[in-house]
Amino acid sequence: MISGSTKTFYMIAHPIHHVRTPEIINPVFEARGIDAIMVPVHFTPEDFKTGWEAIRRTQNLGGIVVSVPFKELAYELSDEVDEMARPLGAVNVVRRTGAGKMVATNLDGDGFLGGMLNGGHDAKGRKTLVIGAGGAGKAISFALAGSGCASLRITDVNGDRAAALVDDISRRYGDLDVAVSGNALSDADLVVNATPCGLHPETDPLPLDTDLLRPGMIVADIVMKPRETPLLKAAVSAGCDVRYGAGMLDAQIDLMISYFGL
Amino acid sequence: MISGSTKTFYMIAHPIHHVRTPEIINPVFEARGIDAIMVPVHFTPEDFKTGWEAIRRTQNLGGIVVSVPFKELAYELSDEVDEMARPLGAVNVVRRTGAGKMVATNLDGDGFLGGMLNGGHDAKGRKTLVIGAGGAGKAISFALAGSGCASLRITDVNGDRAAALVDDISRRYGDLDVAVSGNALSDADLVVNATPCGLHPETDPLPLDTDLLRPGMIVADIVMKPRETPLLKAAVSAGCDVRYGAGMLDAQIDLMISYFGL
Repeated sequence: MISGSTKTFYMIAHPIHHVRTPEIINPVFEARGIDAIMVPVHFTPEDFKTGWEAIRRTQNLGGIVVSVPFKELAYELSDEVDEMARPLGAVNVVRRTGAGKMVATNLDGDGFLGGMLNGGHDAKGRKTLVIGAGGAGKAISFALAGSGCASLRITDVNGDRAAALVDDISRRYGDLDVAVSGNALSDADLVVNATPCGLHPETDPLPLDTDLLRPGMIVADIVMKPRETPLLKAAVSAGCDVRYGAGMLDAQIDLMISYFGL
Repeated sequence: MISGSTKTFYMIAHPIHHVRTPEIINPVFEARGIDAIMVPVHFTPEDFKTGWEAIRRTQNLGGIVVSVPFKELAYELSDEVDEMARPLGAVNVVRRTGAGKMVATNLDGDGFLGGMLNGGHDAKGRKTLVIGAGGAGKAISFALAGSGCASLRITDVNGDRAAALVDDISRRYGDLDVAVSGNALSDADLVVNATPCGLHPETDPLPLDTDLLRPGMIVADIVMKPRETPLLKAAVSAGCDVRYGAGMLDAQIDLMISYFGL
């Protein structure tokens, strides 16, 4: 039951309707007897800074979870970011300290490895392709690089963004075969859609040419709603091993609760 | 279940722990199948304006309930106030329109009559004393004036504030016997504590000299937590007819839901 003593948390995104964190984390709060609640909060991009100023001043707020398109901006606005977030320039979980300091991390990479790839074993030795070099794409690319994949290809509609990410990863993982790529599959056997393509299945383009999917490949999607995106549907038909977006979030819930100190 | 489509509402007060609206209104939302949630939001007075700017920009926010000490400031900041709120200079319920306009009312008076006084019948012909001329005291005083009480006495630690309220009421209810008073009971037979005295029973002073309470008087308190304030405890001992603060809020819940358009 929500009372005046309940600690509040916000889930912030734009748009907001598709977010799933509140419906997953609130039953966990309840099951564990944690007096906390997470509610969806929708700011448009031009209003996020104004929202942030109010959030840092909300005395009973425990923290926020930040989704697209605010992860980079939240990184800039945070008072402290940890070593998980720094190479990414993006955060997705922010804790508000009692003094109103905003301390942030990025749990997307750990969530990806933990949930979608069964602790990272699937990525070891794989030839990987990440589509999308935005907030989630960066986190996933760094996670793959750190998990011992054989090679990493990155593609983005914004070629400069993909190139910048490749440079960043090269600097930290000098031995890794990492390069910008088109979104053709070439020889990849683990492909991750880290773009929002699929959120609107009727109108979104496919993130890659699904005719090139082959049995035995792993195809992962960060989109959580719908559960089966057009990409994953094609991947199932082609005999691929698929990973649903929900797995990435499920694996993050425990990490979030721990980060919030609950 | 809270999802990305759930409409959010805030209950704003300073301090926050004692507020009871969320724990009453959320079960009503659930029982009626309304996809909405109200959470407590705590701003200190110096941060309320910053909070307001974010609130008006929160796209999925349906509205806010405002408690002490923000009702007057919320009145000033609202884009539109109705005729219930205007004479009070204070609002306690604000609806956010889709366009981000903040439209406000004051349901304290109707809540008081509806809940504490059984539709106002108790006040008719009574000699009334209201202690406290702040937001709630004003609303209750106007409600009593409009319900046909025989006389109205108003007291406040800030004498100017009490005098200003008496002037306001005189202007609207020219025939009513209304005056500033000390907080001695004199001949009152309906007394309302509209101050926060009682929220901290260990340290708060009593709002009036309880030795003067007599059987048959009605003693009402707006304080909701604790349910039985030291004032009401003394009133029960003295054989008075008591009205608990919760009644005022319970009666407002339906009015709020209707005002929010749910």
